[in-house]
Amino acid sequence: MAWERSSMRTVRVRNKQIVGTLANLLAAISASKGSVGEVKLLNDTMHIVERDITVYAADETQMAHVIEAIRNNPGTEIDEIRDQVLEMHQKGKIAIRSRYDIDTLAKLRRVYTPGVANVCHKIAENPDLARHYTITSHLVAIVTDGTAVLGLGDIGALAGMPVMEGKAMLMESLVGLSGIPILLDTKDTDEIVETIANIAPTFAAIQLEDISAPRCFEIEKRLQDRLDIPVMHDDQHGTAAVTTAALMVATRRAGTDLGKAVIAQIGLGAAGFATVKMLMKLTGNPVMGADLDPAALQRLEEAGGQPATLEEIMAKADIVVATTGVQGLIKAEMVRKGQIILALSNPYPEIEPEVALKAGAAFAADGKSVNNVLGFPGIFRGAVDANASDISEEMLLAAAQTLADLTKEGYLVPHPLNKKVHQAVARAVAEKAFEQGLARAEYVPYVD
Amino acid sequence: MAWERSSMRTVRVRNKQIVGTLANLLAAISASKGSVGEVKLLNDTMHIVERDITVYAADETQMAHVIEAIRNNPGTEIDEIRDQVLEMHQKGKIAIRSRYDIDTLAKLRRVYTPGVANVCHKIAENPDLARHYTITSHLVAIVTDGTAVLGLGDIGALAGMPVMEGKAMLMESLVGLSGIPILLDTKDTDEIVETIANIAPTFAAIQLEDISAPRCFEIEKRLQDRLDIPVMHDDQHGTAAVTTAALMVATRRAGTDLGKAVIAQIGLGAAGFATVKMLMKLTGNPVMGADLDPAALQRLEEAGGQPATLEEIMAKADIVVATTGVQGLIKAEMVRKGQIILALSNPYPEIEPEVALKAGAAFAADGKSVNNVLGFPGIFRGAVDANASDISEEMLLAAAQTLADLTKEGYLVPHPLNKKVHQAVARAVAEKAFEQGLARAEYVPYVD
Repeated sequence: MAWERSSMRTVRVRNKQIVGTLANLLAAISASKGSVGEVKLLNDTMHIVERDITVYAADETQMAHVIEAIRNNPGTEIDEIRDQVLEMHQKGKIAIRSRYDIDTLAKLRRVYTPGVANVCHKIAENPDLARHYTITSHLVAIVTDGTAVLGLGDIGALAGMPVMEGKAMLMESLVGLSGIPILLDTKDTDEIVETIANIAPTFAAIQLEDISAPRCFEIEKRLQDRLDIPVMHDDQHGTAAVTTAALMVATRRAGTDLGKAVIAQIGLGAAGFATVKMLMKLTGNPVMGADLDPAALQRLEEAGGQPATLEEIMAKADIVVATTGVQGLIKAEMVRKGQIILALSNPYPEIEPEVALKAGAAFAADGKSVNNVLGFPGIFRGAVDANASDISEEMLLAAAQTLADLTKEGYLVPHPLNKKVHQAVARAVAEKAFEQGLARAEYVPYVD
Repeated sequence: MAWERSSMRTVRVRNKQIVGTLANLLAAISASKGSVGEVKLLNDTMHIVERDITVYAADETQMAHVIEAIRNNPGTEIDEIRDQVLEMHQKGKIAIRSRYDIDTLAKLRRVYTPGVANVCHKIAENPDLARHYTITSHLVAIVTDGTAVLGLGDIGALAGMPVMEGKAMLMESLVGLSGIPILLDTKDTDEIVETIANIAPTFAAIQLEDISAPRCFEIEKRLQDRLDIPVMHDDQHGTAAVTTAALMVATRRAGTDLGKAVIAQIGLGAAGFATVKMLMKLTGNPVMGADLDPAALQRLEEAGGQPATLEEIMAKADIVVATTGVQGLIKAEMVRKGQIILALSNPYPEIEPEVALKAGAAFAADGKSVNNVLGFPGIFRGAVDANASDISEEMLLAAAQTLADLTKEGYLVPHPLNKKVHQAVARAVAEKAFEQGLARAEYVPYVD
C-alpha cells in the first residue's frame, strides 16, 4: 500500500480545466512508480483546477522521478511541494498544557500558593489522595533508550523522540491518558532500571518502548518486581496481544482450531518471544520457534517452547507467525497446504501474502494489518483505571480477545482509530484486573 | 492579607432581599476572624439573592467558626460549601495534549508510521534537528525529591506534586514552555545526579525544585558540569533574582546606594546563600551572613562573605534580608534607624513590616511581595530560546535588573501575572546569553 512507502510529499498542482488532465496526471504518477494518497480540491475556476495531491514513493530518488513526472504532465503546473510530515513534527507533536487559565491572582492562589499547601498536606497524610489531586493518576512514562526504534534499529533515544511523541499523541487522543516521553542517556540494564525506578513516583504506569532484546526482558522483569505500578514493554506485549488477536481472527476464518493446531514462531526477538508466551498461555500447548541466536532458542526452551529450524517449522506447523525483519525469508515452495501464515515484518514481509496463498496457504497476511496502535492505549487505560499493580498475561489475553471479537468480517483486526474499540479493550483489561485481585481502585470504567 | 491564610472555602449563600443583609453577613465573617475574597452574584430575584462568597481563615478550626457565623446570620441560608482549591486540583492541573487531532489514517501515517521514520532518520543524521522536530526544544523537567516543599519541609515528592504541577502551569501560561514534573524516589545526591543525567536528553532545561540544602548545592553544580543544557535550582537562583530585584527597588525608594551599603543576609539556606552570592556579584563587596549551622557559615566564608551573628548584623548592616523561617526572630529593639529590611519568611516574617517601620526602618517588606513566579518562567524561556548551555550569574542579574526596571511606583516588584514582564525577562536573559557567548541558537526572541 502507498502509505508504507518511505517518502511522502504533498504537491500543489494547477491543472488546466481540460477533461482528462487529472486522470493523465495520476497515470503519470503511477507510471513513475509513485502512489497517490489524498487528493484535495482547493479551487475550481473556468480555466484551472487547483489541488493538493499527496504522493508516496519508495525512497527519495524515486520521489524525484515522481515529481519530474508531475512537472512534465501536459496541462499541469506545480505550485509548491510540501513535506507535510516534517511540517506536522515542527516543535513537536505534543504539549503540556495548563488545565486552567491563570488569569487572576485569585486563581493563582488556588492552584499555587497558598491554596496548594492544603493539597500537599492532604497527600502527605494520605498518599492515596495523589490519585485524586494530581496528574500522577493518569500520567504514563513512555521510556526508550533508542536501541530498537521502528525498523531503524539503534538510532539513539533522541532520534526516537518523534515516535515517542507519536505514542503520547495516540494515548491522549484514543483513551485520554497523558503520556510523556522519557529519553534515556544510557543503554546499561542496571542504570536503566535504577533510573526508571527513581522517577517512578511521578507515574501511574511505565510503557517501555523500542528497547532491544535481550535487555528488554530483564529490564521489564526487574521493574515489575520492584515497582507497584504496571510496567509493560509495548514491543513485546502490545504487539503480542494484537498478533494473537489477528491469529484468533485468521483461524476463525480458516476454520482452524487454535487449541489443536501446531503453532510456530519464526524470529524470537522482543515481539516474537512475547507472542510465543502468549500463545502458549492461551492454548496450553508448546509453540515451535526458530531464531538464528542460540540464546533466543534457549530462552524459548526455558519458557516451555520447542526450538526448531525454519524448514521444520514450515514442514510441520499449521500456523506460522514470522517477525524476523528478513524480506522474502519464506519461499513459496516451503508453504504447506492449508497453512495460516502471518508474515509480519515491516515494511517487507517474509513472504508476500499473495505468494503464500498461491502456494496453498489457507490464510496469509502481512504486518500492515497488525498495528500496535490497537494494543497499548486500551491496555494502559484499563490497567490505570483499575489502579492495577501489574499487567498480567490474563489482562493481555483479555485485550486480544476483545480485539478479535470486535473485528469486522473481512478484516484481520479492528480499525485502529475506532475509539469504541480502545474503550472496550480498556474495560476488558480493567475487569480482568478486578477478577484477578490486581485492582486497587473503585471500578470506574473509562468512558469517552 | 486574606489569601495567605491557610484555609479557604467557597460558600454559596441565599440571602433574603433585605437591605443590609450582605453587609451584616460580611461583618459577621470579620467578627469570627474570617476574611472575604471574591463575592460573586449568581441570582437576584424579588425575594432572594444568591452569591458565592470565598472566605479565608487561619486554619480549619477558625474556618468552622466562620461557617457557623455565616449560618447564624439573620436572613442568610447556606446552600453549599465548596473547597475550590481541592476542586481545581482534581485529576491534576496539567495535561499532555496532542497538538493535532488524529482523526484520519492519513494523519496517523504522518505523525506515526510510516511518515515518522523520515523524521527519525533526519535527527539520527543531525541531532540538532531535534530542536526543530520534537518537543525537546521547549520541554523543561521540574525535578524534586520533596525535601523542602514550600514551608512544609520534607513531605516527600508525591506530596510536593501539586506544587510541581503549579510550576508547570505557570511555565505554560506565562511563557509557553512545556514543563513536566519529575518526582524522585531518592534523596541520595549521587542517585539524583545520575537519574537526572540519565533522562536529560528528553529536555531543553532542568529546573531543580524544593531540594533541601546543602544537597541542592552539590546536585546543581554536578549537573551543570555534566550536562550541556541549563540546570537551575529555582529555590536558590529564581528566589535570589526576585529578591535582588526587590532590593534594587527598595534601595532606590529609600535613597540608599546598593554599591556602598553594608548588606547582610540572615539565614543561609538555599535561597539565602544564593542571594548572598548574587548580591556580592552585583556589588563586588562582601555580604555579612548569619546562620545557626556552622557549615553554612563556612560555605559563606569560602564564597567570600563575612560570617556574623544576628546581633552584629542588626547593629551594622544598612540592608538586611532574612530567610530563616523563624517568625518574629528580629525584635523591634534590634532595628537600626534607616535600615532596609526584607523579612521574607512565609507566611510569618522575621519581623512585621509595620513593626520594623515603627522601630525606625527606612523601608520594610515581607515575603508576600517577593513571589518566585516572577523569576523562573522568564529565566527558563530566555535560556531555552538562546539554546544556552548554562544559566550564568550575569543572566540571572539581567533578569533581576529587568524586574526592578519594570516595577511600578509603590510596588516592590511587578505584577506576577503580567506576561509582558515575563517576556521582557526572557529577552534580557537570552540577550545576555548571546553577549556572553553561551547561546547556540539563532536569536528568535520570545513573543507572546
